[in-house]
Amino acid sequence: MDGQNRYMAAALEEAEAAARRGEVPVGAVIVRDGAILARAGNRTRELCDITAHAEILAIRAASAELGDERLTGADLYVTLEPCAMCAAAISFARIRRLYYGAEDPKGGGVDHGGRFYAQPTCHHAPEVYSGIAEVEAARILTDFFKGRR
Amino acid sequence: MDGQNRYMAAALEEAEAAARRGEVPVGAVIVRDGAILARAGNRTRELCDITAHAEILAIRAASAELGDERLTGADLYVTLEPCAMCAAAISFARIRRLYYGAEDPKGGGVDHGGRFYAQPTCHHAPEVYSGIAEVEAARILTDFFKGRR
Repeated sequence: MDGQNRYMAAALEEAEAAARRGEVPVGAVIVRDGAILARAGNRTRELCDITAHAEILAIRAASAELGDERLTGADLYVTLEPCAMCAAAISFARIRRLYYGAEDPKGGGVDHGGRFYAQPTCHHAPEVYSGIAEVEAARILTDFFKGRR
Repeated sequence: MDGQNRYMAAALEEAEAAARRGEVPVGAVIVRDGAILARAGNRTRELCDITAHAEILAIRAASAELGDERLTGADLYVTLEPCAMCAAAISFARIRRLYYGAEDPKGGGVDHGGRFYAQPTCHHAPEVYSGIAEVEAARILTDFFKGRR
């Protein structure tokens, strides 16, 4: 398995773990220099915190780990297209590349909605690669919502 | 001083306190049923966390206080137009009304950039009132950046 797939596999594991906790199953991993700096799944319910999306938790953990609020040179892998909140946070953290799995036409903020990285108010845009493991990423979400009905 | 101005005055105090800590001076207050639920200033540098904007810290504190990730019926006062990250968080938290001071053409996400509340990917939009104490809010920011030069 090449690096890109290995890191997305770790993000998918985080999404599966989130589903087992009863959270909307999204997972994220931050990588720099070939090492995973942080990995997280969505914990909005557990933490009673609407900002506790996988990407935000991973960014906060990586910044704490490095003692640097900017994650210059780091890449973020996430199973679902980031929302507007997370898209902006990824920009503020100076993430170099964003790899995401499934598209999110209803709530995405990268290739849908306000498309933050295309705005003049965006001062750092990561390179974006989408559709990585998108079938698996979408399946985890679909199974989760099917199980809840 | 009427309620609206009193709450913005508290947000301005938080902005001034942030400036004294060497943080970009933005302050926010969350109010429900005539009481301040949470107040916060920007702490991105101190916490080494790019998500630690005043609005995010206030939302997290209010949710922790109430044990509820949704702040239905609560209003948020902030000295500067929220960025895309904070605009989305305000929506996710189901804030009823957003009152902000100065506009932020370079980084705002409410009336500039992706205008999150106008997007089909936004599923709850607060009522927005802008320009409250905007001269004072802008002055605190201008003085801060002047002092840094």
